[in-house]
Amino acid sequence: MARVPVAVNSDRLGQAMQASAGEVERMMNLLLPKADDAEAPLLEAMRYSTLGGGKRLRPFLVQQSAALFGVDSRCATRVGAAVEFMHCYSLIHDDLPAMDDSDLRRGKPSCHKQFDEATAILAGDALQSLAFQVLAAPETHSDAMVRCELVSALAKAAGAPGMAGGQMIDLLAETEEFDIGAITRLQRMKTGEIFAFCATAGAIMGRAPAKQVHALHSYAQEFGLAFQIADDLLDLEGDSDLTGKPTGQDTEAGKATFVSILGADRARAQAKLLSEQAVSALDLWGESADLLRDAARFIVQRDG
Amino acid sequence: MARVPVAVNSDRLGQAMQASAGEVERMMNLLLPKADDAEAPLLEAMRYSTLGGGKRLRPFLVQQSAALFGVDSRCATRVGAAVEFMHCYSLIHDDLPAMDDSDLRRGKPSCHKQFDEATAILAGDALQSLAFQVLAAPETHSDAMVRCELVSALAKAAGAPGMAGGQMIDLLAETEEFDIGAITRLQRMKTGEIFAFCATAGAIMGRAPAKQVHALHSYAQEFGLAFQIADDLLDLEGDSDLTGKPTGQDTEAGKATFVSILGADRARAQAKLLSEQAVSALDLWGESADLLRDAARFIVQRDG
Repeated sequence: MARVPVAVNSDRLGQAMQASAGEVERMMNLLLPKADDAEAPLLEAMRYSTLGGGKRLRPFLVQQSAALFGVDSRCATRVGAAVEFMHCYSLIHDDLPAMDDSDLRRGKPSCHKQFDEATAILAGDALQSLAFQVLAAPETHSDAMVRCELVSALAKAAGAPGMAGGQMIDLLAETEEFDIGAITRLQRMKTGEIFAFCATAGAIMGRAPAKQVHALHSYAQEFGLAFQIADDLLDLEGDSDLTGKPTGQDTEAGKATFVSILGADRARAQAKLLSEQAVSALDLWGESADLLRDAARFIVQRDG
Repeated sequence: MARVPVAVNSDRLGQAMQASAGEVERMMNLLLPKADDAEAPLLEAMRYSTLGGGKRLRPFLVQQSAALFGVDSRCATRVGAAVEFMHCYSLIHDDLPAMDDSDLRRGKPSCHKQFDEATAILAGDALQSLAFQVLAAPETHSDAMVRCELVSALAKAAGAPGMAGGQMIDLLAETEEFDIGAITRLQRMKTGEIFAFCATAGAIMGRAPAKQVHALHSYAQEFGLAFQIADDLLDLEGDSDLTGKPTGQDTEAGKATFVSILGADRARAQAKLLSEQAVSALDLWGESADLLRDAARFIVQRDG
């Protein structure tokens, strides 16, 4: 079962995130392949690294943005599951010895420790394929044009212009001098583009006008940077029992981060400002966007 | 430039493959991202491992199957480029130290030797994303339903039910006892499903009736197994100057292959039989399928 998000700024958000995480977990379980055949270790590794917890923050954003446009919640949950498969694949590959070399993830041994490196590489690869398979399936949306837009948007967010490109720069950040502009670009690519996909996926599914898509995109950009600064702060000051992964790794690696450049206090103030800007980006909507507002406030207060 | 395929069984096939490879290379060059930004090493690695040669056999099958149904050749070339990105990503990841640990590919240092392991993992990941991005784009086909079918078919062919699952089993084949049935299933997954995608992609784009799709699927199944047996024979008997990769690796790894189970002579006879069965599967078509027939004969005679 999904862990209860801690230190949420309202019961409302906590309950909604828990309900969402449960739905997404059930959908992921349905969508993941099962077999007794020779490839069983691959399928076990895929399940190991995707099921059994996590805040499911990205699917939550998909579901909440979908709700703004009256999109069928089952369709939104499928898209949420797809983006979570993509996110989990990136965690598996990021944890590999050749990358961040991390032994712990969500409080458990990371995929290559539990299985082996080859299995972890393949599990990540197969999860990426699965994400696109889910998006392209007719069950995800009745309009094939919408499904193609989802595939296209997620492919860009995950590929060289997004997550993979950002991770490449992040690896270089251990050895090269990066200023605040370079770090901002890095983080927009590495985590921001996937958040932007999540926040706009509902608008794509609901065929919303451009103005609303842009508003959600702004929300996601500020949200993503605030999230990342909070993540850097957790790496510096957090408790690995709560984060479920080792802390202090950035400092140890001498990696340029928001916190190493701005210092902890200014970074904290910046995260709070970005969080409020994300909230303001939702002014087009009334109460229907309250959970998205809560989420933007939550991410800078979380301790895990 | 693409290398000239050697030992083709007709000038017609050799010329057609060369023309196709040139078109695909130009399209891949157009589709691959370029940038001077911090992620440049990733983009260089993606280009290094995809451009500059190779027989481009998979795109050739896409183009030839598309030609059977009068599909626009530019659309077919885009789909061919997408499948070649997918194929090249799989080669990059297969060559990694944790997988087949191969230092040479297409006569050059493999991606992780030329760059490093982290860059190679990310280049493969980003190429997979790019393949789906290309398929989902409106330029690939005017009908979004067709584009979704292409995405869905390639995702299944590449993921756990196909290539990634097959590679998982292939790794286990070094330590476990496999009979001929298990090896056949492994190879159908590892290489056969991608060939099946290529041969049926034209039928999907041309909205062909089921009977013709099935015929092309049968062709691809026999083609894929014949190709793989020929590959195993090249690993045993081939010249690494011609194959562009080390030979003798399967035997060294004690890996179960068609050749280790059947012996070289029976394997050679089996490959020839499969090649002829692939040719027979095309009886629905007249001369328009001659290049597909030539290709099925070529793959069991090639020396690289």
